[in-house]
Amino acid sequence: METVGELAPPVRTLLGPGPSNVHPRVLKALATPLVGHLDPEFIRLMDETKDLLRFVFQTGNALTLPISGTGSAGMETCLVNLVEPGDEVVVGVNGVFGSRMADIVERCGAKAVVVETQWGKVFTPEQIQDALKCCRRAKLVALVHAETSTGAWQPLEEISSVVHQAGALFVVDAVTSLGGCPVQVDAWGVDACYSGTQKCLSCPPGLAPVTFNQAALEVIRRRTSKVQSWYLDLTLIEKYWGEERVYHHTAPISMNYALREALRLVREEGLEARFRRHRRNHVALAAGLEALGITLAAQEGHRLWTLTSATIPAGVDDAAVRRRLLEDYNIEIGAGLGPLRGKVWRIGLMGESSTRSNVLLLLSALEEILLKQGYRCTPGAGVAAAQATYTAG
Amino acid sequence: METVGELAPPVRTLLGPGPSNVHPRVLKALATPLVGHLDPEFIRLMDETKDLLRFVFQTGNALTLPISGTGSAGMETCLVNLVEPGDEVVVGVNGVFGSRMADIVERCGAKAVVVETQWGKVFTPEQIQDALKCCRRAKLVALVHAETSTGAWQPLEEISSVVHQAGALFVVDAVTSLGGCPVQVDAWGVDACYSGTQKCLSCPPGLAPVTFNQAALEVIRRRTSKVQSWYLDLTLIEKYWGEERVYHHTAPISMNYALREALRLVREEGLEARFRRHRRNHVALAAGLEALGITLAAQEGHRLWTLTSATIPAGVDDAAVRRRLLEDYNIEIGAGLGPLRGKVWRIGLMGESSTRSNVLLLLSALEEILLKQGYRCTPGAGVAAAQATYTAG
Repeated sequence: METVGELAPPVRTLLGPGPSNVHPRVLKALATPLVGHLDPEFIRLMDETKDLLRFVFQTGNALTLPISGTGSAGMETCLVNLVEPGDEVVVGVNGVFGSRMADIVERCGAKAVVVETQWGKVFTPEQIQDALKCCRRAKLVALVHAETSTGAWQPLEEISSVVHQAGALFVVDAVTSLGGCPVQVDAWGVDACYSGTQKCLSCPPGLAPVTFNQAALEVIRRRTSKVQSWYLDLTLIEKYWGEERVYHHTAPISMNYALREALRLVREEGLEARFRRHRRNHVALAAGLEALGITLAAQEGHRLWTLTSATIPAGVDDAAVRRRLLEDYNIEIGAGLGPLRGKVWRIGLMGESSTRSNVLLLLSALEEILLKQGYRCTPGAGVAAAQATYTAG
Repeated sequence: METVGELAPPVRTLLGPGPSNVHPRVLKALATPLVGHLDPEFIRLMDETKDLLRFVFQTGNALTLPISGTGSAGMETCLVNLVEPGDEVVVGVNGVFGSRMADIVERCGAKAVVVETQWGKVFTPEQIQDALKCCRRAKLVALVHAETSTGAWQPLEEISSVVHQAGALFVVDAVTSLGGCPVQVDAWGVDACYSGTQKCLSCPPGLAPVTFNQAALEVIRRRTSKVQSWYLDLTLIEKYWGEERVYHHTAPISMNYALREALRLVREEGLEARFRRHRRNHVALAAGLEALGITLAAQEGHRLWTLTSATIPAGVDDAAVRRRLLEDYNIEIGAGLGPLRGKVWRIGLMGESSTRSNVLLLLSALEEILLKQGYRCTPGAGVAAAQATYTAG
């Protein structure tokens, strides 16, 4: 075996679909020596983290905690705890993450009633209503708030009414929205919601915040079968995170330190200010891309502030552009997934990565690389257009 | 909501059942700024980590990687990938973690054929053979190598032959042994093995190293049903960790940095030297406890070097002793679990925590606290007995 050298990764500007850049205070928290997972001090930190998560989810839900896995473990937690074999679940599929939800629903032995729309588009309440009519009795409807694979921003409030009128629960994927755009769990009547830490919360990947309201909890209490995953069984996990403090698994201490610090930063900035920052930088990026002749792939009026999917211009070499950005500028952006592979770039402006400097840097670098590839655009047009949006306020 | 202050946990000496103390180099690795999970540099680090894991598992298995969850997620990964509904699985239960395996097997829709022995004792090959005779056709036998709840050290080699003669796979829990006592996956014919990072590897909790040999892989390839967990589906995970690099979930970058560094430290020390250190410190602790009149709870001749369960003397207040250790000395030791609650203390000497200084410190502190509680022992006897073992070599 060869010698494995000292850890010395390059310093990247992370403008892909996550992870986003991490604040030095969060890195410092990660490096804090550990206490045990049943230490009274850790239990105090757990309670603080739950409070901070309630704040970002805008909820009073008692059952609000970070699952010890990445965002996809959060998705699986919501579905395996709420769904039992034989259930019918309506899943909206307009990108990778909707497909993933449908896959997990089927693995639960339930029937996934899939509603599809084009990748990049969002669902109307009517589409969800029609899907609900196809069911005997849908137990829940699962939608992606912020589709990381397309940059589409799904409105939730009206659909929430439709779902509840049909007597179903409403489950929402907020992986790429939480901490970057409004996620109002209580006001919108979302019954269960999950996210990841490595997007707009700017904490490293490894934890998945989840929240469940009373209605969702009652569905769990009324289960007739055991949850198929022991690791993600909320009835066991809540005994550790709740009053009883019964050992379930060893919580990832360092990651919990980091999440608490990342949430403190969100709280210090304030949700409104944070959302404004994400909006401003997205607007500037969009203006800059359009000035370079690059169109946006997601449906107009439903574009995320946190992830922008840009259509790769004809004749431009996708992989070569991303490689030049990474190698010459240390900038990461994301490739398209599935049917969008080679067709879009996914540019994340999430959490710490959502800054004016990063927008201007990316537009400059992209323009330079595109010009070298023989793409025709007005030099400086992208940056100028972005700057103009900042000046306009 | 109250203000959440700066992170300032107490500095503990971690002598419980994990997490163990973490080396400053590992903390520094945790604090390293992140690259993306598909960055060429991260992919290089992943390959190095797989090599280092093969070294500690003493295996050539291609499918050797860290699962993105804690040790229990490793347990679940091994079982949900290998077990299908209707299968028969022999599970040895002599502590908490055997029970947990049986629970997960049942959640897979399989039949757990439970062999039991007293907590603290180990299984004989005959007991496993008898259990296999009760099965129509056992698909696998699952045993805990190092029972963290009792301190019992299960011999594996002979049982491995028995298991394979019956045509079953052998699955082993090495959570509390890997990196502290020999775990020879290939030499012992272990078909699938899992561990955690926060014990003898002295990395924070959050990842679960697993390894699968060809026979286990073929069982996975021949499945007729999908793995019930999407998050832990190895067929998907190996496409990300293998040659294809297909995105599955966002790997916990910082935790992977930490694991790589922790494994580098293991390699620098060398496995033999590391095992010797763990043995020496255990022997010293055992001698010291016995000199204080405290007996060991696990079966003689089968006591782990990494976790020692000490019988709480009659009349001694379990919780008060642990509280004094924590509050007056910043030392964490573990309480007993299940039927051993209030009956034993679990003292971990794992990874960075397994030092001569910690042995002497714990014996001094424990003696002082016990004397204050009115327990009768010769002052200084524990430390003297421990010192004598070091002098004897």
